[in-house]
Amino acid sequence: MNENNYCFELEMKVRDYECDMQGIVNNANYQHYLEHTRHEFLQQAGTGFTDLREKGIEPVVSRIEIDYKNSLRSQDRFTCKLFLRKEGVKFVFYQDIYRNSDNKLCIKGRVETVCINNGRLSRGDELVPYLEKYL
Amino acid sequence: MNENNYCFELEMKVRDYECDMQGIVNNANYQHYLEHTRHEFLQQAGTGFTDLREKGIEPVVSRIEIDYKNSLRSQDRFTCKLFLRKEGVKFVFYQDIYRNSDNKLCIKGRVETVCINNGRLSRGDELVPYLEKYL
Amino acid sequence: MNENNYCFELEMKVRDYECDMQGIVNNANYQHYLEHTRHEFLQQAGTGFTDLREKGIEPVVSRIEIDYKNSLRSQDRFTCKLFLRKEGVKFVFYQDIYRNSDNKLCIKGRVETVCINNGRLSRGDELVPYLEKYL
Amino acid sequence: MNENNYCFELEMKVRDYECDMQGIVNNANYQHYLEHTRHEFLQQAGTGFTDLREKGIEPVVSRIEIDYKNSLRSQDRFTCKLFLRKEGVKFVFYQDIYRNSDNKLCIKGRVETVCINNGRLSRGDELVPYLEKYL
Repeated sequence: MNENNYCFELEMKVRDYECDMQGIVNNANYQHYLEHTRHEFLQQAGTGFTDLREKGIEPVVSRIEIDYKNSLRSQDRFTCKLFLRKEGVKFVFYQDIYRNSDNKLCIKGRVETVCINNGRLSRGDELVPYLEKYL
Repeated sequence: MNENNYCFELEMKVRDYECDMQGIVNNANYQHYLEHTRHEFLQQAGTGFTDLREKGIEPVVSRIEIDYKNSLRSQDRFTCKLFLRKEGVKFVFYQDIYRNSDNKLCIKGRVETVCINNGRLSRGDELVPYLEKYL
Repeated sequence: MNENNYCFELEMKVRDYECDMQGIVNNANYQHYLEHTRHEFLQQAGTGFTDLREKGIEPVVSRIEIDYKNSLRSQDRFTCKLFLRKEGVKFVFYQDIYRNSDNKLCIKGRVETVCINNGRLSRGDELVPYLEKYL
Repeated sequence: MNENNYCFELEMKVRDYECDMQGIVNNANYQHYLEHTRHEFLQQAGTGFTDLREKGIEPVVSRIEIDYKNSLRSQDRFTCKLFLRKEGVKFVFYQDIYRNSDNKLCIKGRVETVCINNGRLSRGDELVPYLEKYL
């Protein structure tokens, strides 16, 4: 899967409070970056998501896998890129983070999400109208 | 105001992810400690708070003052102590944090809260039944 | 003190993980916004700060005051503005946060910082060359 | 692998600021819980770790997998349990989080760590003396 397959990207910059005693971004904060990127992507995919929520439909994360390749540090700029696939009832987000200065891969993530419809696992069909153009 | 006036205290331990590049707890995290201590105090003061919220009554922070006296570090145990006063329509929480190892004062905080009743500032009388025994 | 006195500003957008159960940005996170804005300002003020740190000179926050005026919510864009004054040995940052959509003041902050030189409180003269043009 | 195999456990309680707009603990915060549990475990395993760091030996996370089974909410108490295995050069921590009220599994985590010795990947033998009794 090469870089051309990404369908969304978001640039950010490390904030010092995100770094820990080792002087690098704390591991959990990358998950914040990934979440923010997904939410911005979903925002772009259509305002319908707010409507969905009001109908009791909620996308939730069921599994996350992150490979830590290189660390980000204070002042680093980085770009979060993603593409997604429908795998059964799941929408799976493939999310990578690159450091801007040298284009090195820092984080390789895979985030499985499922759709909860009024408290029950759905087949995810509610999201297809919003996401099919990205699949 | 001496230590005997505190009406609630909570012991915690620094978690490494709360420390920043300087190897000390990040300034904003003390505010988390203060919030958690207030919420635990309110929990002890009576389960009525959940009821209050369901009636549309919400306590909110209107102002915070924190003096940073000494830093906490990885592995430090500390104790958050508080007392409160009603000052006009406000409930004011005086919240101090002491390092356990030497009983040094680390944080001296003052947190003003007001009560919002269905979207409007109230005189705070709704909370008096729960808090008067601590005033 | 009117808006024209600000010497630095930084635009950001609320990230969903910064919001709490009440659906608004958690109080402590505003302190993160203020810290990030100060650090970006200091970055602009001169790369000399890294040099200073290597000489054992460290600016630290000694006191913070925040008035919470209006809440930020998911998707809100906001602008952090600051000006600063030297008051005795302290550099005091006056930091306000405005919501972009209606230019409403959300946060009014005042952050006192002192300079530690090899473990001892300094008169702050080390920072004057970097900051005097903003005073 | 049944529960009897855990070699360390730590009880915690949800803090309200860890919950997000959905009223449940934000996904990234579970990673904080897992990290804090590992660090407390390592603290128990021997003070030698500080010595190791001074010799330039640093354990780092290379990969994390988390299955989100059930959500934690405000006021929930929970217990983080772990066991570990040496798999090649990696120490792999198997970390699960259970809700105390009903003993339900909330989080199933697997965290791969490697050892960096003066900037280079090591075979992990430096940690064996500290961890072998837990393997």
